[in-house]
Amino acid sequence: MAEPSSDILETFENPYPNRNYRIETIAPEFTSMCPKTGQPDFGTLTITYVADKLCFELKSLKLYLQQYRNHGAFYENVTNLILDHLVEVTQPRWMKIEADFTPRGGIRTAVTAEHGAQPE
Amino acid sequence: MAEPSSDILETFENPYPNRNYRIETIAPEFTSMCPKTGQPDFGTLTITYVADKLCFELKSLKLYLQQYRNHGAFYENVTNLILDHLVEVTQPRWMKIEADFTPRGGIRTAVTAEHGAQPE
Amino acid sequence: MAEPSSDILETFENPYPNRNYRIETIAPEFTSMCPKTGQPDFGTLTITYVADKLCFELKSLKLYLQQYRNHGAFYENVTNLILDHLVEVTQPRWMKIEADFTPRGGIRTAVTAEHGAQPE
Amino acid sequence: MAEPSSDILETFENPYPNRNYRIETIAPEFTSMCPKTGQPDFGTLTITYVADKLCFELKSLKLYLQQYRNHGAFYENVTNLILDHLVEVTQPRWMKIEADFTPRGGIRTAVTAEHGAQPE
Amino acid sequence: MAEPSSDILETFENPYPNRNYRIETIAPEFTSMCPKTGQPDFGTLTITYVADKLCFELKSLKLYLQQYRNHGAFYENVTNLILDHLVEVTQPRWMKIEADFTPRGGIRTAVTAEHGAQPE
Amino acid sequence: MAEPSSDILETFENPYPNRNYRIETIAPEFTSMCPKTGQPDFGTLTITYVADKLCFELKSLKLYLQQYRNHGAFYENVTNLILDHLVEVTQPRWMKIEADFTPRGGIRTAVTAEHGAQPE
Amino acid sequence: MAEPSSDILETFENPYPNRNYRIETIAPEFTSMCPKTGQPDFGTLTITYVADKLCFELKSLKLYLQQYRNHGAFYENVTNLILDHLVEVTQPRWMKIEADFTPRGGIRTAVTAEHGAQPE
Amino acid sequence: MAEPSSDILETFENPYPNRNYRIETIAPEFTSMCPKTGQPDFGTLTITYVADKLCFELKSLKLYLQQYRNHGAFYENVTNLILDHLVEVTQPRWMKIEADFTPRGGIRTAVTAEHGAQPE
Amino acid sequence: MAEPSSDILETFENPYPNRNYRIETIAPEFTSMCPKTGQPDFGTLTITYVADKLCFELKSLKLYLQQYRNHGAFYENVTNLILDHLVEVTQPRWMKIEADFTPRGGIRTAVTAEHGAQPE
Amino acid sequence: MAEPSSDILETFENPYPNRNYRIETIAPEFTSMCPKTGQPDFGTLTITYVADKLCFELKSLKLYLQQYRNHGAFYENVTNLILDHLVEVTQPRWMKIEADFTPRGGIRTAVTAEHGAQPE
Repeated sequence: MAEPSSDILETFENPYPNRNYRIETIAPEFTSMCPKTGQPDFGTLTITYVADKLCFELKSLKLYLQQYRNHGAFYENVTNLILDHLVEVTQPRWMKIEADFTPRGGIRTAVTAEHGAQPE
Repeated sequence: MAEPSSDILETFENPYPNRNYRIETIAPEFTSMCPKTGQPDFGTLTITYVADKLCFELKSLKLYLQQYRNHGAFYENVTNLILDHLVEVTQPRWMKIEADFTPRGGIRTAVTAEHGAQPE
Repeated sequence: MAEPSSDILETFENPYPNRNYRIETIAPEFTSMCPKTGQPDFGTLTITYVADKLCFELKSLKLYLQQYRNHGAFYENVTNLILDHLVEVTQPRWMKIEADFTPRGGIRTAVTAEHGAQPE
Repeated sequence: MAEPSSDILETFENPYPNRNYRIETIAPEFTSMCPKTGQPDFGTLTITYVADKLCFELKSLKLYLQQYRNHGAFYENVTNLILDHLVEVTQPRWMKIEADFTPRGGIRTAVTAEHGAQPE
Repeated sequence: MAEPSSDILETFENPYPNRNYRIETIAPEFTSMCPKTGQPDFGTLTITYVADKLCFELKSLKLYLQQYRNHGAFYENVTNLILDHLVEVTQPRWMKIEADFTPRGGIRTAVTAEHGAQPE
Repeated sequence: MAEPSSDILETFENPYPNRNYRIETIAPEFTSMCPKTGQPDFGTLTITYVADKLCFELKSLKLYLQQYRNHGAFYENVTNLILDHLVEVTQPRWMKIEADFTPRGGIRTAVTAEHGAQPE
Repeated sequence: MAEPSSDILETFENPYPNRNYRIETIAPEFTSMCPKTGQPDFGTLTITYVADKLCFELKSLKLYLQQYRNHGAFYENVTNLILDHLVEVTQPRWMKIEADFTPRGGIRTAVTAEHGAQPE
Repeated sequence: MAEPSSDILETFENPYPNRNYRIETIAPEFTSMCPKTGQPDFGTLTITYVADKLCFELKSLKLYLQQYRNHGAFYENVTNLILDHLVEVTQPRWMKIEADFTPRGGIRTAVTAEHGAQPE
Repeated sequence: MAEPSSDILETFENPYPNRNYRIETIAPEFTSMCPKTGQPDFGTLTITYVADKLCFELKSLKLYLQQYRNHGAFYENVTNLILDHLVEVTQPRWMKIEADFTPRGGIRTAVTAEHGAQPE
Repeated sequence: MAEPSSDILETFENPYPNRNYRIETIAPEFTSMCPKTGQPDFGTLTITYVADKLCFELKSLKLYLQQYRNHGAFYENVTNLILDHLVEVTQPRWMKIEADFTPRGGIRTAVTAEHGAQPE
């Protein structure tokens, strides 16, 4: 399967660019593959941002995230790659991703990455 | 169906304009239409404000919100539009809207927008 | 029915005026009439204050609040009027009222008003 | 019945006067009489203090509080009187009393009073 | 992708066939594809059984369930097919599967199927 | 708007007609109109059944229920009409609908209707 | 490491053999090894019984269970073997073991086995 | 220290012997010594009974239970001995003792013993 | 019984004296005797510290605390004495003890004492 | 058994070294041996860090922690040693370990150690 690509992400014009308002999107059904064991991983993504000129469209986000379904990558990579892709297409004033993964071998992990500084 | 209009919103004189008191209104039965899929969306709106000369009347707020029942718009648009309408008719000292929408395709979203600065 | 009047409120001398101590009174059985629909409203009042020379007596408060049973007024009006009446008869150093009303038409509202600044 | 008296309160020497340590005592079974209605009132007293030379002994506190059982006084009076008595016999560096009374006529009240400033 | 096959399921001899003891296995990370929309579905499977001569091995169950990851079928079909496969390879005295799927379009569904009668 | 019609409901062949297995579907975003006040109603439908030859398809159920969005009918009518429509198209061995509506004027209502007898 | 042996289990005379009283012992720190992967497993054992002539002593039970720390066996085997050993040394009127194991590969399992019939 | 003796238990006449009413007494501060390790044990006793001619007096029960403070005995023995003593002095129609002990070595135990049959 | 002595407390060298790390130890089974009534008291001790050259060993702490089992002293004395003993043998950079005692005569008390200042 | 060694820990290149993002890993199935009693200890480790050039790989962390399964060391030692090993192999910008151990002899302990200062 091809690498996850940001091409699938659609945006629409931020209808209120003059306002620093906050958008929080929670995706509890994220799944990818472990590159070490070839086994599926499961997690919850929480994406929070303040848009500048563009917002990401939610159905395209769903399809974008489904690209990871059969894609192998470490948690740290996945989390930062998604942040990079979303930053690339929306150029937000600020964005944060928290990714909580379910336990494997009795151990669970969460990765939190941020782009820019949260506007007051 | 016509665009939601602020005309339906009624106000009454703030009975105590000399005081910075806080009004919080929670509307858990908000529903609109997704412009992308044509499917209904559901959410909870929390409106908090400090009035200046005018307060919005609650029954007219209910009727105002019902205009969105068959109206299609993105979450980001709906939230900011309602804020704009309420600001237009009441000219508050400060107002904030938090909109929490139920999951679609396993993904849920909340939008928070604010007008002015909260008086101390 | 006559307008709610502060005449019914009784006070007694603050037994410890040299001390800034706090009194909190919660009345969860408040009821009034909606001036728009003629329907009964229900709510919980939380009154907090630091007395100066006078405290309000609780039985008279109960009778005072019962005046609103068949009285029609907006939430914002009711809350501030009660605050004004209690301030008028007790002249407190500081007083705050929080009024939480039950849902009407699926919408619920809370009003918070304050008099003076809370002593440290 | 005689007025509650501080004579019944016993103290013992603070075993560690060089240390600013905190003592918190909670008495959930306090009861007194309402001076207005002649009905019993019930409440929970929370006494917190930093002792100087003397601590109050707990069994004598229990007996001291039992003096209020058939004594009529407003909540505000009772709370401050107990604080005065405890301050009189222990001369603490700091003391606070919170008194939470159960509902009467659907209305409940709490009184909080403090003596001195809490040491850092 | 090929149809899910029971070939991947491994068994081991029931070490205590003389006893009617109960085994309950919960798999909260089940995922398959919706045959109607092509979108992924997510759910929790609870498998309870009393073994006869054979038990299913858990790692092979995990791999067996992963066959559904890119397989399209209705909830009703998936639940019964898994029951049939597990019954086929273990020939249990009794087996029950409860499958709880997460919401789609605001609607969630659970399917419960049983084989044989639970021994007392 | 036209009357809600069962024509929109799609079915598929029960894949396991030899088994009496249970299907439970919960739709918490049901909304219709009150025929008396013209105001929207909101509720949660729980549909439980044992299929015979046919199962209802979930996406078509979602669209079917959306027909009530601008349709006026009493709770009792709505609940029984949905049961009748689902029975008509699937001819189940047994079916039950529980409908829980949100409060109106401080009063909430639930309606429960059943078709046939639940197989053991 | 040697096989777990019941030799380490100590008993003492049931002090009240004329009474059918119930003893419940919960060991939440049980750990053994998976025979398939060589990885450690963790679980909680709940042992309930009605003694006849003998009770097992708790410190010896702790040491007995520690024998499994580096011992490899399937959950089904472990649970029944412990039941057999405890039955062998105490000959109870009735005994039940519930073993709840923590998730592996996202799947968790519980095994429940019983000896004899619980006296009324 | 001497063996715990029932001599210390005082009784009073059951004031309502014609009624089968239930008395429940909970003692969460029970402590005894482990006969194996010489270490203190801690537990909560729940004594429930229907009296016949006599009830046990609570202050004497407290003193009775304090006899176990430095007394060594197994949980099973302690629980049944207390039951025997209380049965001996009160001759109840029915009595049950549940004793929940805190964990030792990661293992916790509860013993439940009953005398007679609970009247309907 | 002799006075509680710090002689029983064992220490071991702080394995990481170059690091200001925090150790928190909770002992919920503390018991002593009331010097006034001769009755047992029960409480929970929470000891938090940053070690310098020495740590206290936990089994010796358990035995140290058991010295209070039949020792009479006021809560204020007990708490400060334990702090003094632990400070004496470990010479910590900082230490705090919170002691929460269970109710006596319906009144409960907590004592909190600290040695030194908590390192940043 | 040999001393736990950091050799078993594998790392991979931090895929996003330009970002100060946070990784939190929770291992609730940690077990080691008490050097004083020879008995097993159990605890939960929470490791939080900001990577510099390297991240630790989770499967190797699991195997690394399993080295402690039959290794004897005090809580304080174990916690700091794991921190040292993880710091040694990953050279993080900041790392913290919290270790919560289950009760022994009725006493439970938590140790918290930190390396470097958390980046803003």
